[in-house]
Amino acid sequence: MSFLAELMSTVFERRYRRSSARDDRPIEELCTDLLGNSGEVSGGVLARLILDRYASLDWEDKRAFFAFLTGSQGIDVATVRAALDSFEAAPDKASYRALMAACEPDRQELARRLNQVPGATERLVEMRADLLAMLPENPEFAMLDLDFRHLFASWFNRGFLVLRPINWETPAEILEKIIAYEAVHAIDSWDDLRRRVQPEDRRCFAFFHPAMPNEPLIFVEVALTRGVPGSVQALLAKGRDVLEAEKADTATFYSISNCQSGLAGISFGNSLIKQVVADLSRALPKLSTFVTLSPIPGLTRWLAANDRSLDGADAARARALAAHYLIQAKRPDGRPVDPVARFHLGNGAEVHNVHADADTSENGRRQSGGVMVNYLYDRARITQNHEKFAADGTIAASSEVRSLAAIALEDA
Amino acid sequence: MSFLAELMSTVFERRYRRSSARDDRPIEELCTDLLGNSGEVSGGVLARLILDRYASLDWEDKRAFFAFLTGSQGIDVATVRAALDSFEAAPDKASYRALMAACEPDRQELARRLNQVPGATERLVEMRADLLAMLPENPEFAMLDLDFRHLFASWFNRGFLVLRPINWETPAEILEKIIAYEAVHAIDSWDDLRRRVQPEDRRCFAFFHPAMPNEPLIFVEVALTRGVPGSVQALLAKGRDVLEAEKADTATFYSISNCQSGLAGISFGNSLIKQVVADLSRALPKLSTFVTLSPIPGLTRWLAANDRSLDGADAARARALAAHYLIQAKRPDGRPVDPVARFHLGNGAEVHNVHADADTSENGRRQSGGVMVNYLYDRARITQNHEKFAADGTIAASSEVRSLAAIALEDA
Amino acid sequence: MSFLAELMSTVFERRYRRSSARDDRPIEELCTDLLGNSGEVSGGVLARLILDRYASLDWEDKRAFFAFLTGSQGIDVATVRAALDSFEAAPDKASYRALMAACEPDRQELARRLNQVPGATERLVEMRADLLAMLPENPEFAMLDLDFRHLFASWFNRGFLVLRPINWETPAEILEKIIAYEAVHAIDSWDDLRRRVQPEDRRCFAFFHPAMPNEPLIFVEVALTRGVPGSVQALLAKGRDVLEAEKADTATFYSISNCQSGLAGISFGNSLIKQVVADLSRALPKLSTFVTLSPIPGLTRWLAANDRSLDGADAARARALAAHYLIQAKRPDGRPVDPVARFHLGNGAEVHNVHADADTSENGRRQSGGVMVNYLYDRARITQNHEKFAADGTIAASSEVRSLAAIALEDA
Amino acid sequence: MSFLAELMSTVFERRYRRSSARDDRPIEELCTDLLGNSGEVSGGVLARLILDRYASLDWEDKRAFFAFLTGSQGIDVATVRAALDSFEAAPDKASYRALMAACEPDRQELARRLNQVPGATERLVEMRADLLAMLPENPEFAMLDLDFRHLFASWFNRGFLVLRPINWETPAEILEKIIAYEAVHAIDSWDDLRRRVQPEDRRCFAFFHPAMPNEPLIFVEVALTRGVPGSVQALLAKGRDVLEAEKADTATFYSISNCQSGLAGISFGNSLIKQVVADLSRALPKLSTFVTLSPIPGLTRWLAANDRSLDGADAARARALAAHYLIQAKRPDGRPVDPVARFHLGNGAEVHNVHADADTSENGRRQSGGVMVNYLYDRARITQNHEKFAADGTIAASSEVRSLAAIALEDA
Repeated sequence: MSFLAELMSTVFERRYRRSSARDDRPIEELCTDLLGNSGEVSGGVLARLILDRYASLDWEDKRAFFAFLTGSQGIDVATVRAALDSFEAAPDKASYRALMAACEPDRQELARRLNQVPGATERLVEMRADLLAMLPENPEFAMLDLDFRHLFASWFNRGFLVLRPINWETPAEILEKIIAYEAVHAIDSWDDLRRRVQPEDRRCFAFFHPAMPNEPLIFVEVALTRGVPGSVQALLAKGRDVLEAEKADTATFYSISNCQSGLAGISFGNSLIKQVVADLSRALPKLSTFVTLSPIPGLTRWLAANDRSLDGADAARARALAAHYLIQAKRPDGRPVDPVARFHLGNGAEVHNVHADADTSENGRRQSGGVMVNYLYDRARITQNHEKFAADGTIAASSEVRSLAAIALEDA
Repeated sequence: MSFLAELMSTVFERRYRRSSARDDRPIEELCTDLLGNSGEVSGGVLARLILDRYASLDWEDKRAFFAFLTGSQGIDVATVRAALDSFEAAPDKASYRALMAACEPDRQELARRLNQVPGATERLVEMRADLLAMLPENPEFAMLDLDFRHLFASWFNRGFLVLRPINWETPAEILEKIIAYEAVHAIDSWDDLRRRVQPEDRRCFAFFHPAMPNEPLIFVEVALTRGVPGSVQALLAKGRDVLEAEKADTATFYSISNCQSGLAGISFGNSLIKQVVADLSRALPKLSTFVTLSPIPGLTRWLAANDRSLDGADAARARALAAHYLIQAKRPDGRPVDPVARFHLGNGAEVHNVHADADTSENGRRQSGGVMVNYLYDRARITQNHEKFAADGTIAASSEVRSLAAIALEDA
Repeated sequence: MSFLAELMSTVFERRYRRSSARDDRPIEELCTDLLGNSGEVSGGVLARLILDRYASLDWEDKRAFFAFLTGSQGIDVATVRAALDSFEAAPDKASYRALMAACEPDRQELARRLNQVPGATERLVEMRADLLAMLPENPEFAMLDLDFRHLFASWFNRGFLVLRPINWETPAEILEKIIAYEAVHAIDSWDDLRRRVQPEDRRCFAFFHPAMPNEPLIFVEVALTRGVPGSVQALLAKGRDVLEAEKADTATFYSISNCQSGLAGISFGNSLIKQVVADLSRALPKLSTFVTLSPIPGLTRWLAANDRSLDGADAARARALAAHYLIQAKRPDGRPVDPVARFHLGNGAEVHNVHADADTSENGRRQSGGVMVNYLYDRARITQNHEKFAADGTIAASSEVRSLAAIALEDA
Repeated sequence: MSFLAELMSTVFERRYRRSSARDDRPIEELCTDLLGNSGEVSGGVLARLILDRYASLDWEDKRAFFAFLTGSQGIDVATVRAALDSFEAAPDKASYRALMAACEPDRQELARRLNQVPGATERLVEMRADLLAMLPENPEFAMLDLDFRHLFASWFNRGFLVLRPINWETPAEILEKIIAYEAVHAIDSWDDLRRRVQPEDRRCFAFFHPAMPNEPLIFVEVALTRGVPGSVQALLAKGRDVLEAEKADTATFYSISNCQSGLAGISFGNSLIKQVVADLSRALPKLSTFVTLSPIPGLTRWLAANDRSLDGADAARARALAAHYLIQAKRPDGRPVDPVARFHLGNGAEVHNVHADADTSENGRRQSGGVMVNYLYDRARITQNHEKFAADGTIAASSEVRSLAAIALEDA
């Protein structure tokens, strides 16, 4: 198999080299060609050539390429207006088709034509990652980025994603990406990884797209426990006792990481959590509680901005301040200041509990004085929670957390 | 495995039944709901409910549903115009986003949200098949259809398709679809099928989409031969001698069938042929000729319209008339009258030869007096052929066919 | 994949042809060579050559080959005796090794050396099928056959077998073997097959060996029903109502077929039934009854030998005679005359019920006047039933069947 | 999938626990039971119980169990003699069957009956590993060990083994075993492993048995190079330049490790090398040289025993001494003293070259003063080399090595 795959790619490689060696036109010209007539028939070779050419560009040439896409391949206002007038005058198939064509910038079709060679999807995602990195300095690329995002939202539609368990039987190639992409609680070695994926009371799941089978899009790490845990170091400890999966009553989501910066803004987290909750419930019917153990990334910063601090605070005060922050600290749009809170509350979860000394890592101390929070996903209330939160920002929380938040107000 | 898959779906089924049993709102209301807030959080259940509801509708209710999608979920001209004005006045991220949003009808987002449950893609394709069947009587649905087509062109982008060989190791479930979908030379039994996929000198390949793994999108049947064949009955004969694949010099594509009427207008044939040519070349380096043995579906009809006929024509005259038709009979737009000719010539193939008594089936006699044609895919000339054909309709043909076509003119 | 597999085998083929073309020594000499020194190092080429040579032999040459294996490759009594004496005198590693070597005929090692090329296991099984076909005329081959059987019992040990469901997703290549191998109730078309494997209340399972992945060894067909069925035609009827699998309370094994005549005497049936009972119980926990609907192949013959007949018997009398036969008709060794009864009772099943007009096919009429029997596998009693049957031939039966059998005695 | 597998095993687990909890008879009694009548019918539960019981025994109880197998389950000389007499008197099927039965100790059938539950094969291999560890102190177990070995030779017959590439896509579970089992040049980290399996000029292959799919039996590490390498540290260096696989002319086998101590004496190495040579030739036709870079484990020891030493020897002298040792140092049976030499020369390889400073690791220095040897597998000469070596111990060697060996004699 592997030999032969090799042989195949070798043959293909050779043919491609022959044809690509002869074509040193600028990438912009190649793109125009791909969009034109010959793109239909010799599209594969051309698409691969463009993607390879792009990969070989330096940062400034990439910027120039994005400028080309932004400038020459956008929509034309006059054309859209004319098409809109025609459509308004006589809304039929022809005028609708013309209007739709006018409204869609050429670069979307360009991306679809590029996406016909093996591996292209991944490379287009990387292309957008480059674009996003330039965006702060080149805000004019924002429109181009919206087009990428629109296309990716269609391509990475939930119905095309595949949930796969990540465990000790997973190929090393993918596991090393899990190590690299873990963004919440760093995985410091293969042994650390093994402790998170091999024991029967630790699980990990990732979404994949069929066109990028070796690239996780997002993954979640889960601990199966008895009761709701309040310390991430306890969950990750070496040498801890492993629980029989069957005896667990609680599944705790203690880390969720997005893997592809080029897919920023395409939301997978909500679907991932719901799918994992459904699958775990089915496999382990004794699980009754689905909860997170989440960081509070904005706590320290917000307290400082409000002339308060966790320095020297005892556990009770630390919890109270955290509860207050989570429930009361709002942005001008009425949503919570804390981004993790926005995510889980937006999904219909509720603030269940807060724990002092829950993340004693340097990062945990710095961002939230070691305090962490459990968001509870109670299937009976998810829809209602979500709707209230969406309607007016109402935050669902346990009475304990409400009390803590109230104390904080008086106390602080 | 299969037991457990069953168990799983059973559990899921039960849960779904509970929730769906309670919701008997009209499908239109469910769709509005799915597009709204709660769609994000309880989308899966809602999407499945809508798809099931749709499947249970009778023809008139489906028509009403399409009317709803056409009427209420299209674009709003005033909104587009206002967004266009704003964008023209200040073309920035916000105005571009607003314009793009205004230009995209809600029903596209609706389709993306429906496409989040297992099997949804296939059901949406079937939905469009229904729509296409109504289109002649309901031309007002054409715009809705354009939206489907636009979405499917993105979802079924070449980069997401998978080529799979179809052979005697293929699951029966898929093979029976090959039998059902064969549109050129009907497969009349499992034995007939076996003769087309099992011998080493007969091949079949199909494109699949990962979200519809058991549904071929298009397939091609190939005969490996010595020399270019001129009779489809000879290719399909029972008890013929099987050629060692290694000894073949020619691969003949004798049948190409699209499988999904709901994907009409999304073109797969060109990609399929090119992929199969590339793969066969690699596996069997002695293959030097890639050719079709194709029907001429419009010949009899065109001759009749021009007061000519193949009745009583000898082989020479039949070939000459066919050659003439293929090369000279044009539509007002300058393209060939014959749809199969348009397809292959548009792909860069050339008219290589014509054969009398090549398809002696009733259908073959009726449509073309039994004459068939070989289109040759010569990789050295494909791009050039394609470009000339695209530019001005120039048809590439062998000198033999040219001579035949010329004779026909004088002779007829 | 398939292309490349082809490429591979092509390359291999060519190399093999080169070397095999030069070697036209008699098969016996090749075998001697394979057992000798060079067999270790060039064994693969030699083994393949021998297997191909064997396949090309005509019946008489095969007979000569078996005569060679019987005569020259058996054990040598004098050598065994000497080794036994040495072992008795000094039972140590060396003397034991020598004794074991003397006791094992060379042809067993020959078979192991033949079994080193892809596909060899299957061809050795076919070789024994030939041997078994000759055995009636060549009883001197019985010893050779015992060696084959001993080797196969080790190779086809239960721990190496894989149970696979056979359904409509199974490759056609395997399904057509199911059609061919069905020995109890013939499958007369692909449609008939589909009715037995596709509906959710019909199942089929087969054992496979990893070295013969496309060859079922034995398979069983199962109907999921409500209540114990009494007619095989009803089970197999076209257009019958399909039961939701979840609603079934009974799994009925209505056909078990051995596929490989070359594996005669290697028993798989007991393991197969038990594995399928275990798997079905797990997947469908509401199943409470596991039963067969079995033929009574020896009934008519036995009645005739005892001057009785089913001609003109009404249902009551037919059932009574069948019950009597099943429970009372014994061979000299005390086991039931009926081979199917011996099989199921030996597995620990019990005679549960008998049905008149249960198999109205020609074969069913002929062998048992249409009467069939249910053997019940009650897990609470299997071990006990088996042990009693093994100890003294005690047959477990329901009181209804006992009564019928008793009536028969008085009545007949 | 994985969830459901879990669910399955949970159900099975529970059932098994119920039945096993009740049975605390001694393991010897359970074995007798398994061999008896009930073994046929309730064999699975009993087999699992015995294997679990065995796993829980301490060392002394295991010893007692082996003593039981040695003592009570061997052959009975009187029975064999009687059977032999009967067979000699009338060699027919019955007498042959009785003789074969008498010659085979019961413990072989016991092992076959144990081998019917998932995972049993692996556990029986581990059982023999225990046995081998006790053998030095319990030489009386040698006969039992011969029976294990005989059985395993049949079960692990070449025809049942599967060659799989080991690379960076291999499950971590298997890769960590590669790290653990590497016996020649230790793998000190996952990064070290990756350097050996991921670059396109480094390969690794292992044999697996279908009943132990996660346990490699033997593996070989290969470097693709230009020219024959003379330093293992250079092959394993961090940061070395990777060669395009297509440009390599030489495949160097630099490490071969057996993984299962319980399979000692079952030879896989010869088959593995030949299979890998065949597969690599096919995939990379430009490879013309297949060679090892092998340790010389006995050199230092042998030199010391002959009052010579590599201390202070320059490269020329070190090579000469090594060449002399490899070619001249023989055991009483005429075979080379060096075990690695015996293996490769026995396979038909030849001594191609020797290199000083080729293994500068502590182990390399100690065993052979850093000298290593290339054994060349030249397909044109393998059979001949093997036969001569087998016949009279003739060692094939290059003229360079011969010269070196000659110099050594005069010089030393």
